[in-house]
Amino acid sequence: MMLKKANPLEQLSAALDNDMEQVNAAIRNEMRSEVPLIPKLADHLISAGGKRIRPLMTLACTAIYGGDMARAYPLAAAVEFIHSATLLHDDVVDESAERRGKQTANLVYGNQASVLVGDFLFSRAFELMTTDNSIEVLRILSKASGIIAEGEVLQLSHKGDMELGFATYLEIIKAKTAALFSAACEVAPVIAGQDAAAVQAMHDYGLYLGIAFQIADDALDYQADRAALGKALGDDFREGKLTAPVLFALEAANDDEKSFWRRCLSQLEQGDDDFDRALTLIEKHKALEKTETLAHEYGQRAKDAMQRAPDHPLKETMIALVDYTITRGH
Amino acid sequence: MMLKKANPLEQLSAALDNDMEQVNAAIRNEMRSEVPLIPKLADHLISAGGKRIRPLMTLACTAIYGGDMARAYPLAAAVEFIHSATLLHDDVVDESAERRGKQTANLVYGNQASVLVGDFLFSRAFELMTTDNSIEVLRILSKASGIIAEGEVLQLSHKGDMELGFATYLEIIKAKTAALFSAACEVAPVIAGQDAAAVQAMHDYGLYLGIAFQIADDALDYQADRAALGKALGDDFREGKLTAPVLFALEAANDDEKSFWRRCLSQLEQGDDDFDRALTLIEKHKALEKTETLAHEYGQRAKDAMQRAPDHPLKETMIALVDYTITRGH
Repeated sequence: MMLKKANPLEQLSAALDNDMEQVNAAIRNEMRSEVPLIPKLADHLISAGGKRIRPLMTLACTAIYGGDMARAYPLAAAVEFIHSATLLHDDVVDESAERRGKQTANLVYGNQASVLVGDFLFSRAFELMTTDNSIEVLRILSKASGIIAEGEVLQLSHKGDMELGFATYLEIIKAKTAALFSAACEVAPVIAGQDAAAVQAMHDYGLYLGIAFQIADDALDYQADRAALGKALGDDFREGKLTAPVLFALEAANDDEKSFWRRCLSQLEQGDDDFDRALTLIEKHKALEKTETLAHEYGQRAKDAMQRAPDHPLKETMIALVDYTITRGH
Repeated sequence: MMLKKANPLEQLSAALDNDMEQVNAAIRNEMRSEVPLIPKLADHLISAGGKRIRPLMTLACTAIYGGDMARAYPLAAAVEFIHSATLLHDDVVDESAERRGKQTANLVYGNQASVLVGDFLFSRAFELMTTDNSIEVLRILSKASGIIAEGEVLQLSHKGDMELGFATYLEIIKAKTAALFSAACEVAPVIAGQDAAAVQAMHDYGLYLGIAFQIADDALDYQADRAALGKALGDDFREGKLTAPVLFALEAANDDEKSFWRRCLSQLEQGDDDFDRALTLIEKHKALEKTETLAHEYGQRAKDAMQRAPDHPLKETMIALVDYTITRGH
């Protein structure tokens, strides 16, 4: 019998098990409120799991740079809170119905509560950060939050925009997704008292991993083989969000195909068979392969950035995490 | 010809005119974004005016304690940003159609954009705060943001709750409104390097003024004479929010009146004449007079707190501001 080898995320979780317990304790503790709906709604999202990849990255980078792990706990929890707040608000904005295999909080508790509990988690993130006495850390994380919101608004502004192009697409995902990964990693060398080169290395690692992560995530929405696993496909398509697979298919599209994409994504006139046709066009133009290649290009940059970190048992794991993020989904 | 005497808010604005210009410059500057929808939507709200009473209070308290006014500018701007972010989210939550005599941002730009631009302003508030190097200031303001969100969720949880009572009502307005007034004043003695007693005095002034302010605001919704001025009445009534005037009317209600309030506010079954009946019952039980008395009780506490501040030309203005807030509306 073959033993299944742990994947890099599992390796990271195992290596940082005790530390993650402290982070989870901080998360549970800061979710508390005398207003019962707050922990109930927050718990609905947070306990549903998610892999806590962002706080794990804060912990791993802190360990790699020999920083004080106790200082990393509230910051890792704050990063997860910012992420959770954006998920709550995203699900309201996207009118999503399912997240992490459960009904979304907005569906169960209503949009109003989701907006307000998102605000609460967001505020608690900042309260948590102030327990660390570094203004620099606060600057990095508050700047990231602002960039996330800008990215979300940019994405909203470009829904159904057939002229989006790769430059703006990358700008959107850099802001809405990669900025928080980047900040989650960047704070580690800061609390470890490292120099600007170390801070830049971890900033770059998080940024490029985050871009690769989101590109790979955008591919999932069009991966026909996932439908067999009961996963919902086509959310971005239905919402008129142009993502990498569509951009590659559009790049190679003939006039007839262009009108198809325009009708579906820009005019949002979609019939029963349209998503199947979208999948066919994406396959025809090898758009998923091209999307994966693009993700790997950014992944390579992330690996290069992590190479600049000092030797540490977790360094190779963080490098391996890059390909895992791209190929296994999240 | 009699010269109209400036009211305390106008006196404050005049005395702090140059300082407010710096704050407004910081507000305009931090509203910038390369995503055009952000300044457009933020400007829709922020340029519509509002009296900027919160940043004025930060400035006035800083002046009274002889603090560095330049340090107060970004903090006053941050306070206004937090306030603006909560207004954007409130209008989404309450499905409001009008604010400051204009259509609400959610109506013009949609709920999604309002949620996200609120998040952006909120993040920018924290970025602004980090330009001041005081972790203590960040703690005060981030704690206040969390409390605001808790207050909003508490209010949402108690919509249509006939058992609300004054204790919970006061808890709600203390959190959703007074916490930010309190923080806006409290940061001033902190940046002026004052002792705990001074910090407590300004905390109390802001808190009690904020409570008085919100109680008076809740009365406006039932003041029939304002309808003649073209002001919309009855928003809270239509949403099933129990506020001070209703609580006083309920306190004195007979069984028939109790069923009326229950049908209208708890079951939200409202006919054409119901709001007029609500006004009649509020008049019958002198609920507006009782509401004003309650506001003045908290107002007195605010005045007492300001008495503890050192002598300064603006001290009397801040004391006069309390009654102005209660009687002139805002």
